[in-house]
Amino acid sequence: MALIVQKYGGTSVGSTARIRDVARRVARFRREGHQVVVVVSAMAGETNRLLALARELSPSPDPRELDVVAATGEQVTIGLLSIALKELGVEARSYTGAQVRILTDNAHTKARILEIDEERVRRDLEAGTVVVVAGFQGVDRHGNVTTLGRGGSDTSGVALAAALKADECQIYTDVDGVYTTDPRIVPEARRLDRITFEEMLELASQGSKVLQIRSVEFAGKYLVRVRVLSSFEDPEANPTGTLITYEEDENMEQAIISGIAFNRDEAKISVMGVEDRPGIAYAILGPIAAANIDVDMIVQNIGASGHTDFSFTVNRNEYRKALEVLERERAAGRFQARELIGDNRIAKVSVVGIGMRSHVGLASKMFKTLADEGINIQMISTSEIKIAVVIDEKYLELAVRVLHKAFELEKGGNGG
Amino acid sequence: MALIVQKYGGTSVGSTARIRDVARRVARFRREGHQVVVVVSAMAGETNRLLALARELSPSPDPRELDVVAATGEQVTIGLLSIALKELGVEARSYTGAQVRILTDNAHTKARILEIDEERVRRDLEAGTVVVVAGFQGVDRHGNVTTLGRGGSDTSGVALAAALKADECQIYTDVDGVYTTDPRIVPEARRLDRITFEEMLELASQGSKVLQIRSVEFAGKYLVRVRVLSSFEDPEANPTGTLITYEEDENMEQAIISGIAFNRDEAKISVMGVEDRPGIAYAILGPIAAANIDVDMIVQNIGASGHTDFSFTVNRNEYRKALEVLERERAAGRFQARELIGDNRIAKVSVVGIGMRSHVGLASKMFKTLADEGINIQMISTSEIKIAVVIDEKYLELAVRVLHKAFELEKGGNGG
Repeated sequence: MALIVQKYGGTSVGSTARIRDVARRVARFRREGHQVVVVVSAMAGETNRLLALARELSPSPDPRELDVVAATGEQVTIGLLSIALKELGVEARSYTGAQVRILTDNAHTKARILEIDEERVRRDLEAGTVVVVAGFQGVDRHGNVTTLGRGGSDTSGVALAAALKADECQIYTDVDGVYTTDPRIVPEARRLDRITFEEMLELASQGSKVLQIRSVEFAGKYLVRVRVLSSFEDPEANPTGTLITYEEDENMEQAIISGIAFNRDEAKISVMGVEDRPGIAYAILGPIAAANIDVDMIVQNIGASGHTDFSFTVNRNEYRKALEVLERERAAGRFQARELIGDNRIAKVSVVGIGMRSHVGLASKMFKTLADEGINIQMISTSEIKIAVVIDEKYLELAVRVLHKAFELEKGGNGG
Repeated sequence: MALIVQKYGGTSVGSTARIRDVARRVARFRREGHQVVVVVSAMAGETNRLLALARELSPSPDPRELDVVAATGEQVTIGLLSIALKELGVEARSYTGAQVRILTDNAHTKARILEIDEERVRRDLEAGTVVVVAGFQGVDRHGNVTTLGRGGSDTSGVALAAALKADECQIYTDVDGVYTTDPRIVPEARRLDRITFEEMLELASQGSKVLQIRSVEFAGKYLVRVRVLSSFEDPEANPTGTLITYEEDENMEQAIISGIAFNRDEAKISVMGVEDRPGIAYAILGPIAAANIDVDMIVQNIGASGHTDFSFTVNRNEYRKALEVLERERAAGRFQARELIGDNRIAKVSVVGIGMRSHVGLASKMFKTLADEGINIQMISTSEIKIAVVIDEKYLELAVRVLHKAFELEKGGNGG
């Protein structure tokens, strides 16, 4: 008998028929004797509908009130799922974030969980009751409703699993696990049986949209065993999905590269021929940060004759704003530069793998593979377990395919 | 400067455009210097949508979970209205029933308010903030979400007005006040400037669908000054609606009859030729009550030769069930009767007025008026301020029209 936290996303509870499917799956785990906590998202489309109503009333709705509105989506689902469970003869009880209570800070629309009072949940579990908790939401010290931001239900699930010291946190979604890359681009992409938190973090932040990045950080911090599964698969088939672990076992040593991540949500800004002096990076990026624009990659080339080229990437939605900020700063004389160049037709491709740490030659293999296809690399950035490059957007699919093949990911990954 | 509680129903907040209208009306009261608490219902259609989802999952959904689902309707509206108010530059803050807190018993789906903690609301009001409260909902001692049943938002409004000792509780709806009868049936129907709580109670329970009956009881008990107004009228026209008072002033003595109420939601059951013995009423109505069927009118004729005829009315939805209960009891020998007759094509028409107390001749005027039109009276029931009769449903409109005319209600009501 285990204590399992299961999280179901919006498409998994997108209709009453789907909710009934979830209830059956939960009932099956109960019948096997497990204690089950279910964390659910709003029904697919519901959060967007609610936010659209708010935006009809204000271009920038008050964040406290936006949370009050948005949190209703998950509240509907917990009630409906509990009704479906009771209809199957399974004792169930729903809780909002405030009822649990999931205490957060007061950063409305992007609150962070501070503490979970798991006593009430534990009492229900011991009585054999399935506990159904609203994801995505919490409550601050003053009783105000807060939400955790998009994808926050994953974080709710992992945080509850951590607080309850659950044996496993199962994240049910519309894919059956984490793949070496997007199967829509590379049909040979392979589902990974296991992956480490760090790799998952890189894959998630690089654009593999399986799990919210904060939930992965959370899981890594509290050593929660997370498994990604599909809610569309037949539960009788005993699907195993992908287990995200914090142990690097032998299997992992073998799998040098775990996957190819990519994203086309970014844009590149280059400040060319800028004076090469201490403080110049701050002069450029300080105003960007002050404008609340997040920066991802940052690259600075070694300068010649006292000048250097400085490039960074931002989210494409903030590209114009970032350029405007820099034009303004440059006009105000805060830095001198020969030229400001923006490019929002770029893509980022990353090779991710725990093996990167110890195996040389992986970077050069990546660069050679791209060069062989005539794909020019515009920026390079590396971390302990990933190499990311920026290329022209039009080569994205080609790059992903040739890298997937070069690292033999369809076979289980070696090629290093 | 006054403290005003305003309650807006579902059609008054049925779209974001309507919510913006409500915000403008509230802003106007704020600008005049009043302290304003706004109580809102779910957007029109929303509660039905939510209940339908629950019923797709279970024919009789768990009441606790049904409340969790249903309460979201009002929560959406409080958030949206607060956003709209802030957009107009009016400080506003939303509260769910649990946040206020509006403490109720734990009778899910039809809970009763026990206590309101008005401290938080009062603090906001004193700071100049408009307080927006979710109607229809509360919380029990254990933190479970409860709802007050259909129309419960009226009760929320009146209860808040009582707790805050508000100067007035304004109920905004889609009609501009209480009428002598339904203007769709009698075009000459006249809006009443004032009406007593008792009359309102009779009118509401007899089917004038302006205010929920429990809210009227509540208002009478705590002497809350309630005013019914239309949210569709131009606020600049300074509409006055109908004031519901607990004082019987001179005006009221004049208006002997305040209105004609009617309803076609009931069905009649007659137990014919039943033995006339002590305990027979209990033998018949006990099992009906045990089956949770509400009974409205009850009439028993004086029996001849040791037998009597016993009739009562129930809600039409429970008509079949009530007949089945009686057939079963009769078959089990709990009572003997010559015949059980049901009729679900009946209507009830009531003449309501505080003047009924002291003026004789009103009943006979009513009976004569109906007789002159050839309308047969099937049952009669009277109270201090009303006379109700059951007639064939097909004569309903005719009966309302001739009674309205006979009592000269279009002129201000005398005719007694």
